[in-house]
Amino acid sequence: MPRRPIVTLLTDFGLADPYVAEMKGVILSIQPLAAMVDITHQIPPGDVLAGAVALRQALPYFPEGTVHCAVVDPGVGTERRILAARYAGQAIVAPDNGLISFVEQDQPLSEIVVVRNDRYFLPGPTSATFHGRDIMAPVAAAIAGGLDLTKLGPPPEKFKLLDLPQPRSEDGGVVVGQIIYVDRFGNLISNVPAVLLEQSLGDRVAAVVSCAGRDVGAIQATYDFGEAGQPLALINSMSLLEVAVKGGKASDVLGAGVGAEVRVGPRTEQGG
Amino acid sequence: MPRRPIVTLLTDFGLADPYVAEMKGVILSIQPLAAMVDITHQIPPGDVLAGAVALRQALPYFPEGTVHCAVVDPGVGTERRILAARYAGQAIVAPDNGLISFVEQDQPLSEIVVVRNDRYFLPGPTSATFHGRDIMAPVAAAIAGGLDLTKLGPPPEKFKLLDLPQPRSEDGGVVVGQIIYVDRFGNLISNVPAVLLEQSLGDRVAAVVSCAGRDVGAIQATYDFGEAGQPLALINSMSLLEVAVKGGKASDVLGAGVGAEVRVGPRTEQGG
Amino acid sequence: MPRRPIVTLLTDFGLADPYVAEMKGVILSIQPLAAMVDITHQIPPGDVLAGAVALRQALPYFPEGTVHCAVVDPGVGTERRILAARYAGQAIVAPDNGLISFVEQDQPLSEIVVVRNDRYFLPGPTSATFHGRDIMAPVAAAIAGGLDLTKLGPPPEKFKLLDLPQPRSEDGGVVVGQIIYVDRFGNLISNVPAVLLEQSLGDRVAAVVSCAGRDVGAIQATYDFGEAGQPLALINSMSLLEVAVKGGKASDVLGAGVGAEVRVGPRTEQGG
Repeated sequence: MPRRPIVTLLTDFGLADPYVAEMKGVILSIQPLAAMVDITHQIPPGDVLAGAVALRQALPYFPEGTVHCAVVDPGVGTERRILAARYAGQAIVAPDNGLISFVEQDQPLSEIVVVRNDRYFLPGPTSATFHGRDIMAPVAAAIAGGLDLTKLGPPPEKFKLLDLPQPRSEDGGVVVGQIIYVDRFGNLISNVPAVLLEQSLGDRVAAVVSCAGRDVGAIQATYDFGEAGQPLALINSMSLLEVAVKGGKASDVLGAGVGAEVRVGPRTEQGG
Repeated sequence: MPRRPIVTLLTDFGLADPYVAEMKGVILSIQPLAAMVDITHQIPPGDVLAGAVALRQALPYFPEGTVHCAVVDPGVGTERRILAARYAGQAIVAPDNGLISFVEQDQPLSEIVVVRNDRYFLPGPTSATFHGRDIMAPVAAAIAGGLDLTKLGPPPEKFKLLDLPQPRSEDGGVVVGQIIYVDRFGNLISNVPAVLLEQSLGDRVAAVVSCAGRDVGAIQATYDFGEAGQPLALINSMSLLEVAVKGGKASDVLGAGVGAEVRVGPRTEQGG
Repeated sequence: MPRRPIVTLLTDFGLADPYVAEMKGVILSIQPLAAMVDITHQIPPGDVLAGAVALRQALPYFPEGTVHCAVVDPGVGTERRILAARYAGQAIVAPDNGLISFVEQDQPLSEIVVVRNDRYFLPGPTSATFHGRDIMAPVAAAIAGGLDLTKLGPPPEKFKLLDLPQPRSEDGGVVVGQIIYVDRFGNLISNVPAVLLEQSLGDRVAAVVSCAGRDVGAIQATYDFGEAGQPLALINSMSLLEVAVKGGKASDVLGAGVGAEVRVGPRTEQGG
């Protein structure tokens, strides 16, 4: 059985307009048997950081050979370039604006190229406003069909990476990080990986967490802890520290969002 | 031609975050040829009753062999169990929290088991917060590929069913029910099946309906009856009594929602 | 390799309720290998004009043989008819309410028929309220499988077309059009095709645009022009004149929507 091409789509286009469908029509025209999966189309318009986080979250769960077409592209039609690259047996097509930053932080990209060969673009004139449809979708479909990335263009001298906030360890085993993503449940997802807590704190059970200056207590095993309406901390399904509220939205209860500080320390640090 | 595996997804995850895509990546990793259909991902967070209604609505329209993966799971990570079962030639995977209640009311489940065999889970550690991805999606994919349910675990002694509101017949041929679901059009969908009206009232044409204490008149054939802005009753596409407003939202016009009372009686009862 | 059936869906059902999934279940029951693509399900309820625009936008990007099932159908259950037709190597199934108007304006439909043969409907009683599921989805699936349209019913004597606003050329090389669609970014999409501007104005570079009485300047190449918050005009990915706001919503900034006037003239006309 030949492998079925898989192409995912991640955009800030929303689902109300036909833009995503136009991309899918282009992909099916090139790869009629493709499975197409929406990662999300509700990235806030132009929010490259949110797109970068979502892309990083989804990738580990897709099979080898999957091609991810990521279009959060406020610079469409300007001189920003389009990149294609391999990553962990999969491939990514995205504008060169930092959208691949979290993925690249996790594991280096390989075979990275600047997409230039218009033989793989949608035939006809390329619009200045919709490279997702006219360039990225057809290129992703071609890669899903087995195209060698070197056919698309030359390697870039360098490419853009966001200046990502990094968690840091302070004296006394304290870890300081930031909220990098807020999900639909209002959960505040930080950039602090579980593994860093284990290194810095040893016994995670003894740690206490604060977020946006508010004590949220120890790290719990599940969302179903304590009183409804109270914030709690846990290690989420991406192995990142997250602040949630049982039966509520942590973003509302704590009045916190992307950029808010999260601190984890031994119980004594905060009088806990 | 071998049957194509079909897996549906019903969750309260929304579409803004990559959670649904993670589940789809897991399913495609196991069943590359699967068709995946979203029933809805916009169940209000944790609203098991709304999920149970939506699941029941969609099932009759899917072909034999379809596997439905339903994740409205406020108790994720607690001791609530996960169930798998056959139903009318299809299969369901869902937490044991009552999500299958409307389906089960319609037709008994068979071959029901408690999902325990981690051989069919996502490899690696199972997160405490996302059993949809780590357990239910891969188990649904395995069932779609032909897995015998008895491989997953033992039958439960019992399983949870919601205490569903039941329509009742009163003296004088009056039927009293409740609104159980409000759709995007503001249509108020009741738990009163057409067949019960026929039994109680005989001639449905002579009946008048009230909802939330307001007379909405006779049962009409279509939404396109009477004046714009006026409520009307009809038998909907699920063969349930529904209250709608032509060109408007019955939920707004009547100020009614889930739990509101609906009464159907002979024309004389309400002076109609 | 036999062609894979492709069926698109365009509705005003939203994604919160299971209605779209019911249609997909019906389609998969008939065409198990079908690719199903959502064009959009967020047409404002009953807004046939918005549905007609979206349908026209998406069609050119789908491969030959695609069948489009378009259900914006406020008259469901009344005597309005259902049509099926060929269009540019593809096919459309839609209520006879003008939903095909923009498509038809672009290129005439052929083999148009009134859908009457209930052999191709969902078996069992046809609901009065959900012809999308009971008639249009199964008919679209049958067409995707190669059904000859003449099997569905006779040609109509005539069919309904919306009275679409047409752009007009005035003296002095001025083109006057209307906003016909507002997308999620608040972009104001007009009915003025680039080709008309070229005919009327010759040099598009020298033109200036106003929308809803406000000067928006020259026609730019991309969204990334000028100051954030300022309106600009461009030719969009459908080759239509569009008014946008860099980093904002033109619909908000200009207080304009569907029906607003857009004027394009030589630079001198507006003192520019």
